Amino acid sequence: MLYLDANATEPLRPEARQASVAALGLGNPSSTHAAGRAARRVLEDARETVARFFGAAAKDVIFCSGATEANALAVHALGAGRPKLCGATEHDAIRAATPDAIIVPVDARGQADLAALDALLAAQAIPALVCLMAANNETGILHDIEAAGRICAAHGALLHVDAVQAVGRDNRDWFGLGAASIAVSGHKFGAPMGAGALIVSAGRAVAPLLPGGGQEQGRRGGTPSLPAIAGLAAALGAPYDSAKIVAYRDEIEAFCVRLGAMVPGAGAPRLPNTTCLALPGVRADTQLIALDMAGIAVSAGSACSSGKVAASHVLEAMGAGALAGQAIRVSLPWDVAADAVPAFCAAYEKMRMRCVEKA
Amino acid sequence: MLYLDANATEPLRPEARQASVAALGLGNPSSTHAAGRAARRVLEDARETVARFFGAAAKDVIFCSGATEANALAVHALGAGRPKLCGATEHDAIRAATPDAIIVPVDARGQADLAALDALLAAQAIPALVCLMAANNETGILHDIEAAGRICAAHGALLHVDAVQAVGRDNRDWFGLGAASIAVSGHKFGAPMGAGALIVSAGRAVAPLLPGGGQEQGRRGGTPSLPAIAGLAAALGAPYDSAKIVAYRDEIEAFCVRLGAMVPGAGAPRLPNTTCLALPGVRADTQLIALDMAGIAVSAGSACSSGKVAASHVLEAMGAGALAGQAIRVSLPWDVAADAVPAFCAAYEKMRMRCVEKA
Repeated sequence: MLYLDANATEPLRPEARQASVAALGLGNPSSTHAAGRAARRVLEDARETVARFFGAAAKDVIFCSGATEANALAVHALGAGRPKLCGATEHDAIRAATPDAIIVPVDARGQADLAALDALLAAQAIPALVCLMAANNETGILHDIEAAGRICAAHGALLHVDAVQAVGRDNRDWFGLGAASIAVSGHKFGAPMGAGALIVSAGRAVAPLLPGGGQEQGRRGGTPSLPAIAGLAAALGAPYDSAKIVAYRDEIEAFCVRLGAMVPGAGAPRLPNTTCLALPGVRADTQLIALDMAGIAVSAGSACSSGKVAASHVLEAMGAGALAGQAIRVSLPWDVAADAVPAFCAAYEKMRMRCVEKA
Repeated sequence: MLYLDANATEPLRPEARQASVAALGLGNPSSTHAAGRAARRVLEDARETVARFFGAAAKDVIFCSGATEANALAVHALGAGRPKLCGATEHDAIRAATPDAIIVPVDARGQADLAALDALLAAQAIPALVCLMAANNETGILHDIEAAGRICAAHGALLHVDAVQAVGRDNRDWFGLGAASIAVSGHKFGAPMGAGALIVSAGRAVAPLLPGGGQEQGRRGGTPSLPAIAGLAAALGAPYDSAKIVAYRDEIEAFCVRLGAMVPGAGAPRLPNTTCLALPGVRADTQLIALDMAGIAVSAGSACSSGKVAASHVLEAMGAGALAGQAIRVSLPWDVAADAVPAFCAAYEKMRMRCVEKA
């Protein structure tokens, strides 16, 4: 099988596997005895690593079960009493956590319309919480977080950045760019599933969404998922050959475009590893099934919403029209090999011939 | 080190380690391609195993990050619009999730006062949600869930059972006894930290606490913690030598009682592995430190609240008075060895001599 669905989950990093396996069977990090202290050292070392990586203080790192929880915690803690504004192409984790959000439109290239953001913030009677993803999971498109941060600051709004797809692929100084908080997910950068973090700017108070036994300084109850957390920390900063990956991505993209594919958002700044390939007239699920039968693992939209075959809200927000139901996502993993390019291209060409005939 | 703090976390079961390690690096179970389907098989096999173990249907098992989340989800989903009644000795996970709860008192033996429960339910204008733990984490005391279930049914109330400490040690047919839902935590029965489940009675609807990408049939968003979930399922039903463990526990208890220890709740039905040893006049943390220095890992109260040295709300609710600040918990792990008994007893005797002298 050729795995080209890194945005659903990155292949496990060997560093992360090793750290997770080593953390299996440790004590409860809340225990005060020697076994607990050994576990706590692993937990706090991981916290230090995460803090250092993101330019934050260790006390501002809150470990949780993943980015769905981290995003929900951000909305709960930072959004209390504030109107919420969310980008039109946010992940379902943010969309579900902010059912009452005012939507910040995106332009045809998929980037947040910053003039609209400015106007929407100006119209709020009280300071808002703005949720913008660093990089879109379906298209790889990067928002201009720095500009959004300046606009938020001018209006006294807080900016929460869902950095899930960017971490490890397009690392930035999110807090320097104006984020009040960021959400990250370990398994999106090569750690095992089961851990994520909300990281807040210096000293920001966080009221718990899951209260309980006082863990995470009272900001998230429950025994932490120690093996997954150790893996998360170990995967951060693992080598990522961005130049290679973007070159492979561009080769794939150019090939498919020659065959008639359209690439929504191709003109925008994007992650190195992601391309969204729309094939006019051919349903996304038809393409997926044909590629899957050829041993190629790609997706339509986000993995989370797979199973239901629906047009992509991301592409619809970009004004892609019917293409929103005809696009697949190819997202190259960190360990992609050179032969992935010809293998994918050959499979894509065959799929296209068969599907376009049928369509 | 002699680890006698199983109620904080059970030592990892080899079956669970193997299953967790095997699940590291699988795909995202929400993906529709072959890698996703392989991951989904592991997830759904785990769900079937859990369902079978608890006499539930697979569709009624909702995996989440642990019991703090499972308990919070139960309160959120089953408690919506209902008054909440909680036992006085519940874990902080339940206490924090039900800040407005009406407290069901316990008797001096630590069991829920069922006459009081009946009267409190009779006084509610609308049907309530009652939260009772199967077994107390600090004392091992078992509530009479069957009788509580009958009383709840008579008043149209729902009964949520926090079964965290009972699973693997005192297994019952919780749904047959009248539970509407149960919360379980993998690492409390030998799985890795990072997974738990809320299991509901047949077909009960559950509104998500963490919405998101539609996972767990829309009842819990976020990519599931697959390695920890696989470990959870593998640890269920692993051999547990209850007769041996209760014999060791009783030996330890009898020895300590001869030295002057009191055992709150000794007369109540209890878990086989747990004893709560109060040493009149000696602060719990003083005992803990002395035992820790002797290489014995035990705890005062729950691990979650360790660090803060406070009197146990559990023992206070039982009317233990000053003893509430003078009790330690010894909880034998599933793999306890015979020499643990003399080793603990010798250390306890030394600790007592030194501490009682000082006190």
